[in-house]
Amino acid sequence: MSYIAFLTDWGYKGYYVGVTKAVIKKINPQAEIIDLTHEVEAFNVREAMYVLFRAFSDFPPESIFLAVVDYGVGTQRKALALQLEKGYVFVGPDNGLFTLIAETEKVVKIVELNHPQYFYHPLPSSTFHGRDIFAPCAAHLSRGIPIEELGSPIDLKDLVFLPYEKPEIKNQNLQGEIAYTDRFGNLETNLPGCYLQEIGIKEGEKVIIQVREKKFIATYHLVYALASPGALLIHPDSSGCLEIAVYQGNAQKIIKASGGEKILLHKITS
Amino acid sequence: MSYIAFLTDWGYKGYYVGVTKAVIKKINPQAEIIDLTHEVEAFNVREAMYVLFRAFSDFPPESIFLAVVDYGVGTQRKALALQLEKGYVFVGPDNGLFTLIAETEKVVKIVELNHPQYFYHPLPSSTFHGRDIFAPCAAHLSRGIPIEELGSPIDLKDLVFLPYEKPEIKNQNLQGEIAYTDRFGNLETNLPGCYLQEIGIKEGEKVIIQVREKKFIATYHLVYALASPGALLIHPDSSGCLEIAVYQGNAQKIIKASGGEKILLHKITS
Amino acid sequence: MSYIAFLTDWGYKGYYVGVTKAVIKKINPQAEIIDLTHEVEAFNVREAMYVLFRAFSDFPPESIFLAVVDYGVGTQRKALALQLEKGYVFVGPDNGLFTLIAETEKVVKIVELNHPQYFYHPLPSSTFHGRDIFAPCAAHLSRGIPIEELGSPIDLKDLVFLPYEKPEIKNQNLQGEIAYTDRFGNLETNLPGCYLQEIGIKEGEKVIIQVREKKFIATYHLVYALASPGALLIHPDSSGCLEIAVYQGNAQKIIKASGGEKILLHKITS
Repeated sequence: MSYIAFLTDWGYKGYYVGVTKAVIKKINPQAEIIDLTHEVEAFNVREAMYVLFRAFSDFPPESIFLAVVDYGVGTQRKALALQLEKGYVFVGPDNGLFTLIAETEKVVKIVELNHPQYFYHPLPSSTFHGRDIFAPCAAHLSRGIPIEELGSPIDLKDLVFLPYEKPEIKNQNLQGEIAYTDRFGNLETNLPGCYLQEIGIKEGEKVIIQVREKKFIATYHLVYALASPGALLIHPDSSGCLEIAVYQGNAQKIIKASGGEKILLHKITS
Repeated sequence: MSYIAFLTDWGYKGYYVGVTKAVIKKINPQAEIIDLTHEVEAFNVREAMYVLFRAFSDFPPESIFLAVVDYGVGTQRKALALQLEKGYVFVGPDNGLFTLIAETEKVVKIVELNHPQYFYHPLPSSTFHGRDIFAPCAAHLSRGIPIEELGSPIDLKDLVFLPYEKPEIKNQNLQGEIAYTDRFGNLETNLPGCYLQEIGIKEGEKVIIQVREKKFIATYHLVYALASPGALLIHPDSSGCLEIAVYQGNAQKIIKASGGEKILLHKITS
Repeated sequence: MSYIAFLTDWGYKGYYVGVTKAVIKKINPQAEIIDLTHEVEAFNVREAMYVLFRAFSDFPPESIFLAVVDYGVGTQRKALALQLEKGYVFVGPDNGLFTLIAETEKVVKIVELNHPQYFYHPLPSSTFHGRDIFAPCAAHLSRGIPIEELGSPIDLKDLVFLPYEKPEIKNQNLQGEIAYTDRFGNLETNLPGCYLQEIGIKEGEKVIIQVREKKFIATYHLVYALASPGALLIHPDSSGCLEIAVYQGNAQKIIKASGGEKILLHKITS
C-alpha cells in the first residue's frame, strides 16, 4: 500500500483538490490519498514548510508527500521530487517548501520533474501544475516508478531555501520565529520544547514573550486545563516545539503575530 | 470491512486530522476512515454529543466512532471505549460526549483505555491524545482486538454525563433545548418531531417559539420550499427532531440562540 | 473500481456528508468516493453547474457524479440520473444543475429516480434526499445496476435548464457571465480562452472588462507571476475559460461581481 499525503493552499471550496485526486486515481487506482490539509493560507510557503516538517514522520516511511503551494506556477521555478534515506518522498515546487526537511533529514535523491511522459498532458497548463505535473508524478512514484525516471538529478545546494529565524539560546534568551497560527488561535513557534528547561524554567513559572515591541507574560503548563482561562500559557506541543496558547481561548487574538515574525522569550528577572 | 467514523473539533486547517489518519493506517492499513466532521465548534462537547447521536445509526453496525472533542486533554479525565449491543463502538474522552448514546442505547461493555501497549507511543503527549491514545485504540479495535483488551472495565454509572434540558411536554408546552446550529443557520432542537402532533399542531399552522425572553412565530411546513422566503418554519428534520429554519435564509440570524439554551414551544391561543 | 464524485452545498460542518458516505458504503462497500467539493455556496445551482462542467472530464469515464444542491427538496422537482455516451453518469435534482453538461455532451439515457426499492428507506424524508434517494441510487449504479432499472425514462427536452448568458463575440466584444468566485478571489467566467485571440488580444496587452456600469482594465498574462502585484490580469485558466485574477491578491475584492452577472470584454481602442 502506498500513501500519498496531500497538502495545498487550494481550500475545500473549489474542485481543484477533487480533480487532482481523480488524476492520481487514473494513473494509480491503488493509491491511497490522505489529505494533510488544503487550508494552508493562500501562497503561505512558510506555513506549509512547517506543517510538512511536523507531520511527515507520523506517516509510514513509504509515503509520498504531494505539497503544492505554488505562487510561481508557470515561471521558471523548478518542479521537484526529493527522497529521504528514511524512504519518504516529497513532490512539489522549488520555492522553499522543503527547507526544513532538506536541512534536517538525510536527502538521498533529488530530481527536477522534467520528463513530460509522466505529466498529465504533454503540454501542462500554465496555472495548474498541481493537477498537470506534481500529482501525476506523485502517482507514478506511488505505483513504483523510481524517482530517477521522473527527471534530471539536482544538487541539494541548488534548491531554493526559505530564510527563517533559526532557533537559538543567546544569553539565556530564546529566539526563533512564529511558525504559524492553528485553528484554535494557538501560536506555533520553531523553538524546541527543551529550551525552556535549558534556561531553567519550571512548570508553573512565568516567562516573558516579546514579539516586535510588545511583551506578554505566559505561564509554563504542560496541560491546557491547568492554566487560568483567558491567560497565556506556553508548553512543548505534540510536535516537540513550544506553543503559545490560551486555555479555551485564542492566543492569536492577544499577541496578533504572523508567521515569520521573530519571537524572543526569557525568564522574569526580579 | 471495518469503518472508523471520525469526528473532532480540530478543523481542516491543521495537519492534526491527517497525521491521525496516518497513525490509524500504520496500525491497520485496511481501516476505512469516514470523516463525520472536523468542524464541531472548538471545545463544544454538546454539539459533538448531538451530532454523534444523530449520525451513528446510518453507519454499518460494525463501525467504530472515533470522537475527540477534548478540552481536558492531559488531565485525569478518562479515555473511554463503549460498545453497544447493536455492535457500534465509541472511542473518546469521558467528558459527556456519549451522554445521549449511553442513555438511549443498550451499552454492553465500557473500558478505560489504559493499556499503553495499544497507544501510539508508550508515553503519549499531554496535548494530543487524539493521535496518541484514541486513534491507535480505534485502529486496534478495527483490526479485531476485543474491546476488553484495551483497558479496565468501567461501570456505566461512573461515566461523565452532560446535563441537558430533557425534551418534554408540560401543559401543552414543548420544552427542550437548542442542540446546535448547522451550516445553513438551521437551529436543531432535541424535541422529537412527533411532539408537534401531540399538542395538536397541523401542517400550515403556526407555533410560538420562546428562547430566553424572546418570542418568535414559526409555521409548520414539512417541505422547505412551501414556506414564505424569509419567514421562520419548523418541522421534523431528517434525524426525527424538530428543526427551525428559514427557506433560503438563516434562522440563527433571527433567533440568535446557542446550543444548550432552553427552548419553549406552544400553540397560538386566541 | 467505480468512483463516486460527490458535490454538495452542505459544507463540512455538519454530519450530512459523513452519513451519506456511510449509506453509500452500506450499499456498495467497494465504492470509492472522491469529494469534489461540499462548499458550493448554499443553494447556488449556477456555481455547482459550472463546477461539475469543469471537473467531470478529469475523472475516469466510469465515474458517477452525485451532485446535490437541492433547494426544492420535498417538492415535485424530479430526481434524475443522466448517462453520457462517454460513460459518465450524473445523479441529482432536476433544477438545472446539469444544464451545461446536457447542452454540450451527448446524453444517451435519462431516468427519473422513482423506483423506491433503490431508496434508502421506502419512505424517504422530505428534507434529505441526498441521503435517502440520490446517494443510494448512485451507490446502486456503482455496483453495476443499469440506469434504466432506477426509474422511468425522461426526454432531454423535459429537463429543467438554467438560463445563463451564453458566451459570444459581438462586434469585437466578448460577452458572457461570471460563473463563480474561487477561494483565491479569482473570478471565473464562461468565456472560452480562445476568444481573446479571436478579437486580436496578445499576451501583455490590456482589455476593458465591464460588469454592470463599472469598467476595469486587466492585462492578458498566461502566468500569474508575470503580472504586477495588485493589478488585474486575465487569462485562460486550467479549465480553458477566461479567469480574472490578481497575482497574490483578490480580484473579487476589486470587481465585486456575483455568479450570473453579465460580463463584457473588449480591446482598448484609442
